[in-house]
Amino acid sequence: MRNLKATLRYDGTDLAGWQVQPGLPTIQGVLIDALDHITGETIKVVGAGRTDAGVHALGQVANFKTSSNIAARNLRRALNSMLAPRIRIDDLEEVPEKFDARRHAVSKWYRYSILMAEFPDPLLARYCWQIRAKLDTESMQEAAQFLVGNHDFTSFQGSAGKDRSPIRTVHSLDIGTVPGTYPADQISSLLAVDIRADGFVYKMVRNIVGTLVEVGKRKIEPQQLKKVLEARDRAQAGPAAPAQGLCLISVQY
Amino acid sequence: MRNLKATLRYDGTDLAGWQVQPGLPTIQGVLIDALDHITGETIKVVGAGRTDAGVHALGQVANFKTSSNIAARNLRRALNSMLAPRIRIDDLEEVPEKFDARRHAVSKWYRYSILMAEFPDPLLARYCWQIRAKLDTESMQEAAQFLVGNHDFTSFQGSAGKDRSPIRTVHSLDIGTVPGTYPADQISSLLAVDIRADGFVYKMVRNIVGTLVEVGKRKIEPQQLKKVLEARDRAQAGPAAPAQGLCLISVQY
Repeated sequence: MRNLKATLRYDGTDLAGWQVQPGLPTIQGVLIDALDHITGETIKVVGAGRTDAGVHALGQVANFKTSSNIAARNLRRALNSMLAPRIRIDDLEEVPEKFDARRHAVSKWYRYSILMAEFPDPLLARYCWQIRAKLDTESMQEAAQFLVGNHDFTSFQGSAGKDRSPIRTVHSLDIGTVPGTYPADQISSLLAVDIRADGFVYKMVRNIVGTLVEVGKRKIEPQQLKKVLEARDRAQAGPAAPAQGLCLISVQY
Repeated sequence: MRNLKATLRYDGTDLAGWQVQPGLPTIQGVLIDALDHITGETIKVVGAGRTDAGVHALGQVANFKTSSNIAARNLRRALNSMLAPRIRIDDLEEVPEKFDARRHAVSKWYRYSILMAEFPDPLLARYCWQIRAKLDTESMQEAAQFLVGNHDFTSFQGSAGKDRSPIRTVHSLDIGTVPGTYPADQISSLLAVDIRADGFVYKMVRNIVGTLVEVGKRKIEPQQLKKVLEARDRAQAGPAAPAQGLCLISVQY
């Protein structure tokens, strides 16, 4: 059996997330159907991150095993023909049979985009959380630093993920501004929250961003983040940020 | 009567263009309906550029006259509440009664975005023309220079616009690459065609871009553009580029 590693991007707006769900368009489900159509095999597809409904990806990684001998280059083209325009495989390569996209991921980088504006920007609405308040980004950056390092992230764990260990290492957590896509567009109010970690508990990025926004609105003091983390209690943190602002940028192996 | 100048942006994907059309969602139509709802008046809205169905705008300008005395700030908020999320008014200000968004425009800047890729990028598909070929951008830039200056643009005029003079002055026409929206995204293959002119004949940008792409594919020599322009014959130029790559960046007065 050949083992193939795919690097893919998608616009999650009209997709029901990574994980296969009967009757709903999911990235995993669409991939399985396309592989079935092309190879005639029922193929298991393993993804590095189980992105939620509405979450986007620039560099999701998946692997799957097949006995088909179609060249990777041709298989990628055939898959892309079926996946376009919502999903695109940017790279497809043969890897050792042991490689597992999920278990062997060393770290992942997510970006969460926030637009500070009274009304949504029509050209960015699909990819941002729109917030009416002017956020205090310095306080957000200060608060974020309490989360960097090896911690128990129970306070930021969604209820669906309580079966696994909540210990993760956050390598970096930075808040910065992003230039507009178009040259004349002076959107100094577009914020990016970049978080790199060895793994993420369920809804961790969205729960962290939701809490940092409470800091940005001055509802929580930056120092309070340390207490929220130590409480190991989801009720101490802020609400989850909505899905459309989140994007899986890349996975490291 | 007060005269108000609005600067607005929109995602044209699901809109049938600027100009009002019965039963179809157009920017002008949606604005007229919203103004009617708020002021109770039937208000004429003049736009600087009549963008086609599917064309986007970051800096469209419109003006309208009203006897309502709602403060511009409040009127803008009320309008945006009704226009979101497809259209947003970024600025609304009172101007002299003589001001006409269309007749007083001194120049306009359009950007046309092209993605050179075998398959569409899911996160850019709404805002680009996807082309499978690797374009020769140097030849495109060379060809573009023949169009700069004061010329008869009949060769680049769509059939619907033949009632007006085809003489326009192109101030600049540049082809460049654009960085990706996300930091890890190395899209050196995203091209921007920036064109600034005192005015545009119908479908001028899309017809010019379609022709420049023929040059980029080496189907037409760059020097040929001079002959195409001088022929004053639409049949000599290339096909129109599709609407979704086009964006009205700004209007100068």
